Amino acid sequence: MMLLYEGKAKRVYRTETEDVYRIEYKDEVTAGNGEKHDFLTGKGRLNNLISSDIFQYMADHDVDSHFIERISETEQLVRSVEIIPLEVVVRNFASGSIVKRLGLEPYQPMTPPLVEFYYKKDELNDPILTDAHVEMLDLATREEIESLKTAALKINEVLRGMMEKMRLSLIDFKIEFGKDKAGRIVLADEISPDTCRIVDMETKENFDKDVYRNSTGSLLDTYSEFYNKMEALK
Amino acid sequence: MMLLYEGKAKRVYRTETEDVYRIEYKDEVTAGNGEKHDFLTGKGRLNNLISSDIFQYMADHDVDSHFIERISETEQLVRSVEIIPLEVVVRNFASGSIVKRLGLEPYQPMTPPLVEFYYKKDELNDPILTDAHVEMLDLATREEIESLKTAALKINEVLRGMMEKMRLSLIDFKIEFGKDKAGRIVLADEISPDTCRIVDMETKENFDKDVYRNSTGSLLDTYSEFYNKMEALK
Repeated sequence: MMLLYEGKAKRVYRTETEDVYRIEYKDEVTAGNGEKHDFLTGKGRLNNLISSDIFQYMADHDVDSHFIERISETEQLVRSVEIIPLEVVVRNFASGSIVKRLGLEPYQPMTPPLVEFYYKKDELNDPILTDAHVEMLDLATREEIESLKTAALKINEVLRGMMEKMRLSLIDFKIEFGKDKAGRIVLADEISPDTCRIVDMETKENFDKDVYRNSTGSLLDTYSEFYNKMEALK
Repeated sequence: MMLLYEGKAKRVYRTETEDVYRIEYKDEVTAGNGEKHDFLTGKGRLNNLISSDIFQYMADHDVDSHFIERISETEQLVRSVEIIPLEVVVRNFASGSIVKRLGLEPYQPMTPPLVEFYYKKDELNDPILTDAHVEMLDLATREEIESLKTAALKINEVLRGMMEKMRLSLIDFKIEFGKDKAGRIVLADEISPDTCRIVDMETKENFDKDVYRNSTGSLLDTYSEFYNKMEALK
């Protein structure tokens, strides 16, 4: 089966079924634009299990995504979509880059939650975009921009609700969207502790990739514990 | 008369008349966040003459500003306003920072003209802001943001028309707005070759501060020639 794309964390293959792709999660982990780089046996499995379960949770809460089904410990089937080259970030509390950039208080609440677009372009270092930039670069029309924001805020509500039941607080997260053949925009890529900033409501400890970025804990143990908390919801 | 504010290029004084300030243009010129710094005798006069005439031209074309009248070679009276800490940038062609930031072609036309907001905060290096950031930072309401954009585009049309008559092309410019006591938003600060990027339609030579920034010509000669071209319109 033809490899369509290989990224840092996954491989995407064409399948025998038209419009269906297979995603294989890899054991690779990187941070700081590739400055930090490791192989952690079992990471691909955890990301696949978590992302599949979150996409299923989304479907159960009326959020459309490219997800079809998990077919193995490290693989899932998805509908083929054309990825819109935007990283859509939703922030419930100020953390990471925005604190420095705009001189905010760390963990200052964002009310209403803030939606930001970043241009997915490694060679430009993923610059932040205004709505006018998104239109100017022909990445989305004005109507599509509004749909993306509405979808991002809905996903935030669903994800936040799920995390609250796990006694976790969703600080911020990054999602990507794709367009299917009919031009419909759906949630794509993955949602996992790789793409979210999550802290325990009581202990404030991180349940995300920051433990790897900042070398403050074991990524595998953290993701495993996160997955167990999710399983406990069922 | 009390000095209210001293910036790199001007001093603002209170006057005996309530709600009227006096602006004195200085002979100082800086570039690259103060890396380049000079005193050029006559620069203040040229900026004052040009900015006064442009604000008068704006008034003649139904654009409200803080400008009342020029009272000397280096001074003008303005209505007191509270400056909104946003640099509002309008781009007709890609040039300067945006070319690198978004990977654009230099002088690529922006259709429609692009309006951007930057946070006027030296210690943060004037970061670009989305509409949502402007609201979150309480710098303007959603309605005020729309008014600012509409005003910026109208000013662009008027300024572009003026420059075309001078056989000049308006690449981009930066403006600031202020709020008067009634809460009305008006054009403030200055409009001059310090705040615009302007090129000759035929020769493509710069008629703006870039001649100083890039050491490609005499600032005083360039601003003088620009002023003469403006005078010739009368």
